[in-house]
Amino acid sequence: MQTQPVRGMRDTSPKETALRDYLLSIITRTAESHGFHHIETPSVEHLANLTSGEGGENESLIFKILKRGADLERALATASDISDSGLRYDLTVPLARYYAAYQNDLPSPFKSLQIAPVWRADRPQRGRYRQFTQCDLDILGDSTNLAEIDAISTTISILKQLLEPAGITDLTVRINDRRILSAAVLAAGFTATDETQLLISLDKLDKIGIDGIRAELIEHKFDPAKINTFLAFFEGQPTLADFAAKLPTLDEKITANLEQIIANLPDAKVAFDPTLARGMSYYTGPVFEYTAGGFSSSIGGGGRYDRMVGKFTGRDVPATGSSIGFERILVLLEDAGFTPPANLTKTALLLSSDLTPDQLKAAFAEATDLRTKGQIVSLLPMRRNLDHQITALESLGYTTIEKIYSN
Amino acid sequence: MQTQPVRGMRDTSPKETALRDYLLSIITRTAESHGFHHIETPSVEHLANLTSGEGGENESLIFKILKRGADLERALATASDISDSGLRYDLTVPLARYYAAYQNDLPSPFKSLQIAPVWRADRPQRGRYRQFTQCDLDILGDSTNLAEIDAISTTISILKQLLEPAGITDLTVRINDRRILSAAVLAAGFTATDETQLLISLDKLDKIGIDGIRAELIEHKFDPAKINTFLAFFEGQPTLADFAAKLPTLDEKITANLEQIIANLPDAKVAFDPTLARGMSYYTGPVFEYTAGGFSSSIGGGGRYDRMVGKFTGRDVPATGSSIGFERILVLLEDAGFTPPANLTKTALLLSSDLTPDQLKAAFAEATDLRTKGQIVSLLPMRRNLDHQITALESLGYTTIEKIYSN
Repeated sequence: MQTQPVRGMRDTSPKETALRDYLLSIITRTAESHGFHHIETPSVEHLANLTSGEGGENESLIFKILKRGADLERALATASDISDSGLRYDLTVPLARYYAAYQNDLPSPFKSLQIAPVWRADRPQRGRYRQFTQCDLDILGDSTNLAEIDAISTTISILKQLLEPAGITDLTVRINDRRILSAAVLAAGFTATDETQLLISLDKLDKIGIDGIRAELIEHKFDPAKINTFLAFFEGQPTLADFAAKLPTLDEKITANLEQIIANLPDAKVAFDPTLARGMSYYTGPVFEYTAGGFSSSIGGGGRYDRMVGKFTGRDVPATGSSIGFERILVLLEDAGFTPPANLTKTALLLSSDLTPDQLKAAFAEATDLRTKGQIVSLLPMRRNLDHQITALESLGYTTIEKIYSN
Repeated sequence: MQTQPVRGMRDTSPKETALRDYLLSIITRTAESHGFHHIETPSVEHLANLTSGEGGENESLIFKILKRGADLERALATASDISDSGLRYDLTVPLARYYAAYQNDLPSPFKSLQIAPVWRADRPQRGRYRQFTQCDLDILGDSTNLAEIDAISTTISILKQLLEPAGITDLTVRINDRRILSAAVLAAGFTATDETQLLISLDKLDKIGIDGIRAELIEHKFDPAKINTFLAFFEGQPTLADFAAKLPTLDEKITANLEQIIANLPDAKVAFDPTLARGMSYYTGPVFEYTAGGFSSSIGGGGRYDRMVGKFTGRDVPATGSSIGFERILVLLEDAGFTPPANLTKTALLLSSDLTPDQLKAAFAEATDLRTKGQIVSLLPMRRNLDHQITALESLGYTTIEKIYSN
């Protein structure tokens, strides 16, 4: 028997699970108070959907599930595929499938909340696990920027409730529009097919700086003159107006749209950041990212992806998603020494093993009575090492420990 | 792209998910108020643990996960196992592993709550899915019947809170002890190795009757005279005292123990049922089952399994588990037409597309204000087919629908 969890995955202790449940309850309650509907999809997804090109690098990290019985024998005998399903690596592909299957029964726009595990066969490292929880707010069917304002402001409300009680008050939202980046790519003399690599490199600005990006792009055999033109667009903290002036192919509606989103986001430092690209290739409009806790890596992000759901439904469905970095926030809160507020008094009744039936009945009645009054009451057999037992209970937050003997 | 979920698995609608969340919150809150600790383990488990003989028939229903990369190539080239992990089919095997890994950090006894999905490659049919939620209360490290009383009475409290608001008030607990059955097996002249098949057949009494059981056992080549002796023990609704008198190898402590458990269970019809066997072979003492809603099939059950955890820890750990039939209860509640009480007023603000920036700001401020007052408020773009939109929102429980125009 093996007692450790499988490689790269983790068990959660009672204390960790309590913190996870606390996050879940705040996220669910707040998202629902903004009109989002919680839904669930199976952990297992068609391999055809998972490998359709919407998953980017994640498509190489799929845990595939083996066909079974006769299907497997046939596959092995004919050297055909031995798997046709796998564990989902995100919640966006399943959401697109879900919307395609049930769109006629769903409200329009459909404001979806998902909080669920995903699996990626990534190289395990601190804080990165092969099973982890994702938390996505998505608005499907709204082409207006009300979707961005709604998704981002709901996320801000959630993040502030999670972070501020732990003393983390520096929540920042950075926002950009993919179409500004596309216009800059073209204005620098590149073609649209160069965009993916250019944005992957640009996204590393925080980590490697302008010179690092330049070196990386030269390594990728891009023309140095064009690289310089491209990078010049981003130097000196340009404003939206600067881009509108410098990029001839950029529709002014795009910058006006972004200005309106920024103007309507409450209660957080919101800033235009032209270097923000976000990893996934499916984004088509505004993209955004949340940071806090003095860290440069994000605690969430998202963007508009108007052409992905259409691959499932057969016609384009406008969509905006905002993802909350559930596991990242847990680490922030744990590092800040935060524990969820204990609402209920905890009482332990330690029962001696020689209680009479009547004494036992009385103890159960007492426990029921205290629970009716709103307490947590745990009935426990009294241990020989009573001091040790009491210390352990105190560390679990039990403030009243009552010893019940037979006499 | 495939839009339906993978075979045998299911998506849950906003309405279904709301009911699931309602169950989750009652179960978690009540179990925690009885001192149980919520924990989580990964969905993926070592195949060695899943196939160690503790899973009974479930071991043939495992969704196996394919090895990856070089590991897979090596396995295929050498015709060795192409999988060394799989999706868990229950929460008991992972709990035993968990306890073995962390027992020194856990309170003793450890009262565990798990609510999580499991996967079984069963033949799909109505109400039986290949991914479903299990909900287990377990008490590890308590050899006294306080564990049974605690686990069963916590479960009764949960079940009553779930069922009674839906008008289901006929909760019944049937209880037995595996050791009574073992003694009956021996007293009838069978050997201990016959027990598994005898109990599998006996467990079908509700479905096939005494004559059906007799026919099945004859088919299994058991001696007809012994079968008659064995079955005679169970005819005529025998009491615990009857068994104590008729079974010479039955320790009287076993019947006294069961009597004490029954005497201390509150608030439900609790009855000794000598034909109750429960499916899993790992049970070693008291076993029990919950029924309600006029159905003969159970809505939960469990028992003592004192020798299973020891296979992971290396020394026996007494254990009692009580499992709540989460999916079965959902079906009962849905069939009863039950919907969770709506605590919050739901308001929809429908925004015309031509609002000025100031009007938009005012609408957001109104939404925030209403949420502060405890309402659910959804901001939505106004649709051209306004009547349809309003009808859809009303069906989702929105009682106030405010239309906001630019003039």
